[in-house]
Amino acid sequence: MRKELESYFDRLWPICRSITGEGLRSSFRILQEIIPLNLTEVPSGTGVFDWEVPKEWNIRDAWIRRPDGLKIAEFKVNNLHVVNYSVPVHAKLSLSELKPHLHTIPDKPGLIPYITSYYREAWGFCISHDEWLTLPEGEYEVYIDSDLEPGSMTIGDLVLPGESTREILFSSYLCHPSMANNELSGPLALAFLYRLIASIPHRHYTYRFVLAPETIGVIAYLAEHGELMKSRIEAGYVMTCCGDRGNLTYKRSKIGNTLADSMAEHILNHSGDAYSVRNFSVGGSDERQYCSPGFNMPVGSLMRSVYHEFPEYHTSADNRNFISFEHLERTIEMYYRIVSALELNGRYLNKVQFGEPMLGKRGLYPSSVTPELNRRKILLMMHFLTYADGSATLLETAEKMGAGILEFQEVVENCLKAGLVTRRKE
Amino acid sequence: MRKELESYFDRLWPICRSITGEGLRSSFRILQEIIPLNLTEVPSGTGVFDWEVPKEWNIRDAWIRRPDGLKIAEFKVNNLHVVNYSVPVHAKLSLSELKPHLHTIPDKPGLIPYITSYYREAWGFCISHDEWLTLPEGEYEVYIDSDLEPGSMTIGDLVLPGESTREILFSSYLCHPSMANNELSGPLALAFLYRLIASIPHRHYTYRFVLAPETIGVIAYLAEHGELMKSRIEAGYVMTCCGDRGNLTYKRSKIGNTLADSMAEHILNHSGDAYSVRNFSVGGSDERQYCSPGFNMPVGSLMRSVYHEFPEYHTSADNRNFISFEHLERTIEMYYRIVSALELNGRYLNKVQFGEPMLGKRGLYPSSVTPELNRRKILLMMHFLTYADGSATLLETAEKMGAGILEFQEVVENCLKAGLVTRRKE
Amino acid sequence: MRKELESYFDRLWPICRSITGEGLRSSFRILQEIIPLNLTEVPSGTGVFDWEVPKEWNIRDAWIRRPDGLKIAEFKVNNLHVVNYSVPVHAKLSLSELKPHLHTIPDKPGLIPYITSYYREAWGFCISHDEWLTLPEGEYEVYIDSDLEPGSMTIGDLVLPGESTREILFSSYLCHPSMANNELSGPLALAFLYRLIASIPHRHYTYRFVLAPETIGVIAYLAEHGELMKSRIEAGYVMTCCGDRGNLTYKRSKIGNTLADSMAEHILNHSGDAYSVRNFSVGGSDERQYCSPGFNMPVGSLMRSVYHEFPEYHTSADNRNFISFEHLERTIEMYYRIVSALELNGRYLNKVQFGEPMLGKRGLYPSSVTPELNRRKILLMMHFLTYADGSATLLETAEKMGAGILEFQEVVENCLKAGLVTRRKE
Repeated sequence: MRKELESYFDRLWPICRSITGEGLRSSFRILQEIIPLNLTEVPSGTGVFDWEVPKEWNIRDAWIRRPDGLKIAEFKVNNLHVVNYSVPVHAKLSLSELKPHLHTIPDKPGLIPYITSYYREAWGFCISHDEWLTLPEGEYEVYIDSDLEPGSMTIGDLVLPGESTREILFSSYLCHPSMANNELSGPLALAFLYRLIASIPHRHYTYRFVLAPETIGVIAYLAEHGELMKSRIEAGYVMTCCGDRGNLTYKRSKIGNTLADSMAEHILNHSGDAYSVRNFSVGGSDERQYCSPGFNMPVGSLMRSVYHEFPEYHTSADNRNFISFEHLERTIEMYYRIVSALELNGRYLNKVQFGEPMLGKRGLYPSSVTPELNRRKILLMMHFLTYADGSATLLETAEKMGAGILEFQEVVENCLKAGLVTRRKE
Repeated sequence: MRKELESYFDRLWPICRSITGEGLRSSFRILQEIIPLNLTEVPSGTGVFDWEVPKEWNIRDAWIRRPDGLKIAEFKVNNLHVVNYSVPVHAKLSLSELKPHLHTIPDKPGLIPYITSYYREAWGFCISHDEWLTLPEGEYEVYIDSDLEPGSMTIGDLVLPGESTREILFSSYLCHPSMANNELSGPLALAFLYRLIASIPHRHYTYRFVLAPETIGVIAYLAEHGELMKSRIEAGYVMTCCGDRGNLTYKRSKIGNTLADSMAEHILNHSGDAYSVRNFSVGGSDERQYCSPGFNMPVGSLMRSVYHEFPEYHTSADNRNFISFEHLERTIEMYYRIVSALELNGRYLNKVQFGEPMLGKRGLYPSSVTPELNRRKILLMMHFLTYADGSATLLETAEKMGAGILEFQEVVENCLKAGLVTRRKE
Repeated sequence: MRKELESYFDRLWPICRSITGEGLRSSFRILQEIIPLNLTEVPSGTGVFDWEVPKEWNIRDAWIRRPDGLKIAEFKVNNLHVVNYSVPVHAKLSLSELKPHLHTIPDKPGLIPYITSYYREAWGFCISHDEWLTLPEGEYEVYIDSDLEPGSMTIGDLVLPGESTREILFSSYLCHPSMANNELSGPLALAFLYRLIASIPHRHYTYRFVLAPETIGVIAYLAEHGELMKSRIEAGYVMTCCGDRGNLTYKRSKIGNTLADSMAEHILNHSGDAYSVRNFSVGGSDERQYCSPGFNMPVGSLMRSVYHEFPEYHTSADNRNFISFEHLERTIEMYYRIVSALELNGRYLNKVQFGEPMLGKRGLYPSSVTPELNRRKILLMMHFLTYADGSATLLETAEKMGAGILEFQEVVENCLKAGLVTRRKE
């Protein structure tokens, strides 16, 4: 998977995405090679809850020419140089007139910041503070070749049906220009996770994948699908910042103890990886919309380093060197373990409810290579059977024993095969 | 406030109070200058639940004359010298006949104890153990000029109405002779807290202030008002030991997790002051009556050092030097913060329940002096709005964020003003 | 009690018990001298839930004769030498033919293992690994004089009635040959506990004692009595491993927070003895049956060292030297404290529900030897009275104060005598 991840990353990287526009559409088209997302265009001006879809923005070029003729802040060198959603401009102005349009990060003087102005018409450039310090007095020429016109916002989704209409949601966002961890790691993880899930032969759950511009895109998606989703989603996750080298972090849903939360925490706890868990907070990504009071869905977020908290966040340093494809792959694997566990989880009923079942006559005593493994398997089976009362979930049962739920896979299958247990329909 | 506190303290200090009598009445009259308490006289012999109001006690003078003519234990020097509720006596007796009537504290030999005999007719004197050791053999003359006659017990209360009939209770007791922390600090705190509350323009809650002799006074008050109070009181506090230099202590109500408890603990937690919290216990003050099984009201007690546990308790060392008016003032301030928080607390409903509200178009982005403060204010606002679902209380919302509820005052007001939230009527 | 315990132990020790047979019956007859158990014979072949009662096994003699004529593995020397439930055999065979029938413990080379083959017809011998290492090549003669024929399985029970039909269960097992801690300590503790309980004048609860072969015996008992028991049992305990020198261990019921659990843990917590508590697990004794999903009774187990976890378990080292009659007696005492506490526990109603009762007029102020004791007794009484609202149990009340429930015995009796409280009928 790693080679493919790298290759898709490299194709997506140079594109200047925004919350609308052709950069966004072409990124979707590339990702459709992995996950066949349905794309919807929401026209500018459409009211979605408390918001309105903005005009569509497209950009072709931008730069500043210094008084000495030197061209800087070239869009074609780094698309972060232009404030995202800048209106077109071509003008000559003095350094002091220019300065209000320049954005830097004084305490990270070598980095270019990432700045947007979606809802206030403006133009601007982003440069490193080091470069800013060298700017001479004199006349500057600024050029931004962009359009901000009525158009539409593109959002993508896909529903992968299972035996039940109960849903698991995975959501990520597509709207940042060239940024690696806090953009491309999310859509890539979502797309490749889709592939793994699509290959499960009998899926219990229906899986919903949402990929849309952050905030406004998801608000528009919820305006259309929120009511249905609210009644169906049992667990959901916002996929973001999946690729840096930090430990895994799980951010809980607003409710805080939903299936999404307990399963993610269970899987992390039994993963052997270092990780941390934190409560919901409003500084965040699209979980803010999924968990808004009227929806309050069971949606958390499994990531690595947390947006806002790593110094590369929203700067030119959030690039290919910052992320690790090995870590990105491991994040996808962890998401897939959550899926496997959700599929295995259920309420099982042991047919022998009174006294314990006689395992010997059913050939259910495992014969493993070592006595220790054998003893472990018998314990798992007896533990499973004594809690299989049709009301406890397998997750609860596993937690009672301090065992990982995926450890029970073989036991559950053997007991189902022997006709000793049934799985409750839900 | 501090000067006034000192001045009222100095006027109240010399009066010999008891659970009945003129000393009690004149103390009430002084306090009425601050809080316009309604006074009720409950006649001796009135049955109140399991108790009976005792006869009224009044005292004018008392002393012992030693064989050598020296006058000791003079009531006019220190009113602790007479056992409170002593019947009148004028007699000559030997030292060995006198001794059963003398009370000392052998392990605090310099202090005069405070002793009462409300429900068993007796007389006695309290002196320091040092003095007791110097008593020569010979004939002593004892003199107590008191009455114990049918009369009445005085109790005071005041109901300060608010928009709702739901009540907050503050209760303290008036019945000890010259003692500072375990008596006067309580009524003074209650009276000055009243002043602060009375000046709030739109009170949500109704406030009930009860000032009565400890135990019997409050039992008599509850016999009259308990049933109504039980249906109305949402939080209450017994004010006692408010003035010493110890840390604040919150003693929980018997139920233990009522609004009274959670709010007091929240305010202490965010006060920056050192404090401790303890569960309800039966050794205590009038919370014993408010929390008796049939009432079991949400009544705790915020104090400083705990009665019984400071060595000056119920001795002549509980005097003006023992307390600090600065500490007393801070205790009153903490009570007032609890009131402010109770007033602010409520269930708010964000009108934008689906997706998050767009703050920009409502001018709700604060523009603070520093970016850090700005970021904090935005976080507080977004946090407030995402939990404002009409069912969570603001206290719960604040606790979720680990912020103090009073930090939300400005945010709540701005959102109410902008018409973005409403407060649920209860 | 200790002398009697020793004497009964010594009479029971030599008998070769199994899950059926004359050894089992004669052991029951000895125990009937202490506890008048009713014995029931369940015929071989009877279906009991998922199981079937096996044939009856009886044995008279067994040994191996080595090629050099030396007789080893003599049943009459140690009844562990024969695999329990061995079919009869008398044959000559080579060492290599014999070896599959020999059982040893290589890492405990001096000990004889305890092995059974209840549900697979087989024969075998158990010897120390040290002895096994000395076996020469040549022809061996093996002899087992046993029967495995249709018969019956003996189980014992006794119901000791109290004022209420609500039941407390004590269960132990009888089926192991000469083993001390993991067999005889349990039936002996059960029998002597019966004696203590039978001498309580007015028992509140009904007590059910079950003594049966482990697993199959209790399954058969439950097939007959389980439904009734399920509706009546409020707390139950499996008595096993009561006599070694280890600390007490309480293993919780599967539900985990039943009266059985909270009372056992409370008594241990206030015993002053070192102890540990663990959650239910499926590796265990007959709690596996009582807590099977269909019954899920409130049954835990108070023991000392835990089966499986002490190295002497299921070997010839689990003998008289391994246990201590002092420790066995202390275990019985602890069980009896649980019984005393269950009897005292109840919901009490203080007749004075409003305000506190006046203790003085009822003569309820204790007059103890020391003021400290006096103060403690008043606190206990006031604490008891303020929580005696007819709904809190005495156990909950004691826990609120951090006091042991048995500390309240005197207070409860005095308040009942004074007519100040009543005990709620349940």
